Formats: sequence, C-alpha cells, structure tokens
Amino acid sequence: MTLLVVGSTAFDTIETPFGKAEKCLGGSSTYFGLAARLFTPVQLVSVVGEDFPAEHKQLLADRDIDLAGLEIKPGKTFSWHGRYSADMNNRDTIDVQLNTFGDFEPKVPESYRDTPFVFLANGSPATQASVVDQMTDPRFVVADTMDLWIDNDRDGLLALLKRIDGLIVNDSEVKSLTGESNLIAAGKAALKLGPTMVIVKKGEHGCFVFSNYFHYALPAYPTETVVDPTGAGDSFAGGFMGYLANCDIISLANMQRAVAYGTVTASLNVEGFGVDCLANTDRATVERRYQELMQFVSGV
Amino acid sequence: MTLLVVGSTAFDTIETPFGKAEKCLGGSSTYFGLAARLFTPVQLVSVVGEDFPAEHKQLLADRDIDLAGLEIKPGKTFSWHGRYSADMNNRDTIDVQLNTFGDFEPKVPESYRDTPFVFLANGSPATQASVVDQMTDPRFVVADTMDLWIDNDRDGLLALLKRIDGLIVNDSEVKSLTGESNLIAAGKAALKLGPTMVIVKKGEHGCFVFSNYFHYALPAYPTETVVDPTGAGDSFAGGFMGYLANCDIISLANMQRAVAYGTVTASLNVEGFGVDCLANTDRATVERRYQELMQFVSGV
Repeated sequence: MTLLVVGSTAFDTIETPFGKAEKCLGGSSTYFGLAARLFTPVQLVSVVGEDFPAEHKQLLADRDIDLAGLEIKPGKTFSWHGRYSADMNNRDTIDVQLNTFGDFEPKVPESYRDTPFVFLANGSPATQASVVDQMTDPRFVVADTMDLWIDNDRDGLLALLKRIDGLIVNDSEVKSLTGESNLIAAGKAALKLGPTMVIVKKGEHGCFVFSNYFHYALPAYPTETVVDPTGAGDSFAGGFMGYLANCDIISLANMQRAVAYGTVTASLNVEGFGVDCLANTDRATVERRYQELMQFVSGV
Repeated sequence: MTLLVVGSTAFDTIETPFGKAEKCLGGSSTYFGLAARLFTPVQLVSVVGEDFPAEHKQLLADRDIDLAGLEIKPGKTFSWHGRYSADMNNRDTIDVQLNTFGDFEPKVPESYRDTPFVFLANGSPATQASVVDQMTDPRFVVADTMDLWIDNDRDGLLALLKRIDGLIVNDSEVKSLTGESNLIAAGKAALKLGPTMVIVKKGEHGCFVFSNYFHYALPAYPTETVVDPTGAGDSFAGGFMGYLANCDIISLANMQRAVAYGTVTASLNVEGFGVDCLANTDRATVERRYQELMQFVSGV
C-alpha cells in the first residue's frame, strides 16, 4: 500500500568529525521517503523555494517518491547548518533559515487523501492535525514530535495524540512528555495518552516498543562507521512505516519486523553524509543487514 | 562447580532520591557473592576490620557463601559514602575510608586453589594478578576493572588481560581502554588484548557480548523501580559467573544464557537499598524474571 509523509525538505550543511557536506539535500520528508521507498511507493507533501534544484527532485522521483504534493513557493528553501561534537552525541545548530517552510500549510493532494499509511514528521501539532483533517479515514497514522512542542504546545500535542495510532519519540522526549523519569514507566504512560503504539528511540542503544499487547526491546545495528547521524530518526521511521505499509496487515509480528527494518535503514543512513547512503542502497543490502541484526540479537 | 570471588567487603552509606541507607553491608565481593549464590556455592576472598559484625557474616554464610577466605585484620572495615543524582545516572563520593582494604593482599586458602571459576572484582592489576598466581590452572577467569587502572597502570592491566578469559567493563571503560570511540569497534579491539570474551555493560541500556565466535546484544530487564544502583555491575557479574559455574560447561549458548541471568540479578539488586533485594530473593524469582526478559527481547 502507499504511504504518505508530510514534513520538511531542506538544504543541510553538516559538519562532523569525518568532514563537511555543504547544502546537501535534507529534511525529514526526504530522509523518511528515501528509507520508506525501499519497501513501498511514497507520496511526499512538503514545501521548497524556487531555488530547489531539478536534480534533487529527479533523485527523489527516480526512487519511487511521488512529488505531486511538493509545493514550490516564491522564496528560498528551508536551510539548516549543524555541527556535531567529537563523539557525535551532541550537535549545535550554527544557522537555521526557515524560509518557505516557515509558514508551511500542508496541502494533501486529492489523489493522496485515501492513502492508508500516514507519517507526520516533526512539526507543530496544529500542522500535524491539519493533515489528519484532510485524510479520509486513514488506517495507521504515526507522528514524530520534539521538545519544542512538548514544552510550548502541550495541549495541542495531547489533542493530536488522541487522533493518531503511533508515536515515535526519543528517550528524553518521552520522559518530558509524561513526566516519568524511568524510561519504561514513561513509555507505558505515553500509551495512556492515546496512541496504541509508542516507539522510544535511544540512538546507539536501539529502541523500545510499547503497546497494550507487547513490550519489545531491540538493540541498534552494530555499525562501526557512524559518519553523520543527521536524519537517523526519520530514516528509522521511514523503514518502519515503509515495511508496515508494504505488509499492509498491521499485526504485532509485522510491527516487530518493521522496527527491525527501521533499525536497518537508520544504520545505513548514518554511514554516509546526508542522504548519500540511503539514496544509493537497495533492498538486497537491507535484507542482508536485517539478517545480521537478527543474528546479533538472537546470539548463538 | 564452585566459584571464587576476590574483592572488597565494605560498609556503604548510600543516598538516592528514594532515601538513605547508613552503614549497610556492601563491597564488590558481597554484591557478587549474593547474586552468584543463587546458582552455585561461592568462595569469598576479602578483608574486613575487627568492627565487621557477626550478623553480616551470618547473612553471607546462610546463603551458601564460604567465608574461609575472609580475613579479619586489626582496624576498621573499608567504608564508602555516595550520593546519587536525581536521575541516578551520576554519583558523588562523599567519603571513602579504605582502612583495612587499603593494603589488601588476597590470600587464597589452600582449599580454594583448585576452584575452576574465578572472578577478580575491581582492584589493582597487581592485586588481581596475585590471585591468578595462587590458582592451580583455573578454567575460566573473569576480571572487572575501572578507569583508575586503565589510566594509571595500563601496562599492568594489559599484562593481566593476557592471563584471563573474560573481561567485564562498562562502555566508557572499554572506549578508554582501547582508544576507540565507537562502542562496537572498542569491544572488538578489547578482544585483541587477550580475553576470549568481553562484556560491555551499558547500565539501563543492557550489554554487548563480544567473542571471536559471536557478538550479542541484550537489553536490560525493563524495571520501573530503580531505588539504588549501587552494586549493579557486581551483581551482574555474579549472576553471569554463578550461572556459568553451575552449568560447568562453557559453551556459547551457556554464556549467552549466563548474560541474561546476570541481567536479571542486576535488575533485582537495583530495586532495593544495598544488598536488601539480592539477599532476600530466590531462584524461583530469578527464573520468573528470566522468562520475562526473554519475552521482552523476543517480542511477539
């Protein structure tokens, strides 16, 4: 089944201990889409400026990503410049220019409104809710969020959580959202806010999955070459949602495998600058790495 | 088979957000022993002062811990006072008095020298090596260490690593030992220093096991009630070594199960102050929690 993602498209300038990449293709919808397209066709709703080059559009279109929902507005594309610390566990934002993304009002094309699987990348709860409003009875809606919205629009976020099926957040976000300092308690508490599934991302430590039916812990893929962590969360979500949309049936077993596929696409993403690795990988590589991950967690 | 532990015995004063425990029974050999005795008889080599109360000895002796190697010297018992941060991820040492432990020279009783399984709790590499010197061809020797020795007696530590079978360290220690900033690379590099097995503890994030035959990742048991993290590492090591010594056969499959049992004993330990929980648990509780852990990591 097709899968809709609504989020940012950006120019990223990234500095890590491994080097620097200038003005490369980035944004949550891009990372998500390039991971998800390994499993299923993707529809993208986002906005860019008139400076967004044709080759970036071509790169996405060549990879099963439908751009009918990519709005081109007068002005410049969202741009971000970040610098990672030596151990890459922290990053400073050197510069951010929201430009055309500043007043993003997602317009879901008529042809996308029946799409059953929807991912709301990080954005204001109001923007995310406006997407849900435009959809016709979607089957599985998952949202990302961040501290900014947890701190500044808690009411809006809590209202959104009652309208979605899944929430993907990181460890500090779920603690801050629920007020629980223990991660297990926080994950369980987040379930009570509405979603039937909560995934807590822990970066190099893997993730937890909380649902009313099972709790599950999966370590990260044991990569030795983290070159650029940008987009790890979105490429995780892309692999997760892409696999699940391709299965079509939302069973617990499929959800569990989907988490492992998300873990794999995130691991591929961080091994290159920007979207380089994700854009140039294929399903066979994903499958090999999936088997390696299963071996790593099942042991002997 | 029997299992020998060589390490400290102490009076601990512990402050956590959940309360304060004064002058309670502590030390690496105690935490290790109380975890390991759930699986196999334990022989303890340590030192205390004349102030060490009979009831502490009784508590250990009542739990299958042989105290023939517990030396009582003139003076006071090692004492430690620590205070944990609000999230319990950091602790400050308020006071430490080495007392009789300051010049600890482990004397392995004649009757212990044939013991096949040996755990060298944290101590100077010279002290640890002196234990290996006293043993008659032990089958499986595992050591803990810490940053103090990695930084200040690297040569001594590297020499020790060539004489032992397993190393149990935490994530920052293995990075510092090997100079590798990536944890997977660090674990593999540590294997090249001598041990055939390296376990990297990651606290609430579980552990990695590195060997020449398999790499394995296991999340922590999903406990919601961390009351006092003191002794988590030693109670992990105790469960691991205790289970393995009880199996007697050192196979990869047994090692993998032993890691899960160590994870379980550590999770029981942190749910109470000092050794309270460990001293009052039983094998049936351990088995129930082992099954829960297996469920948590296998999912559906």
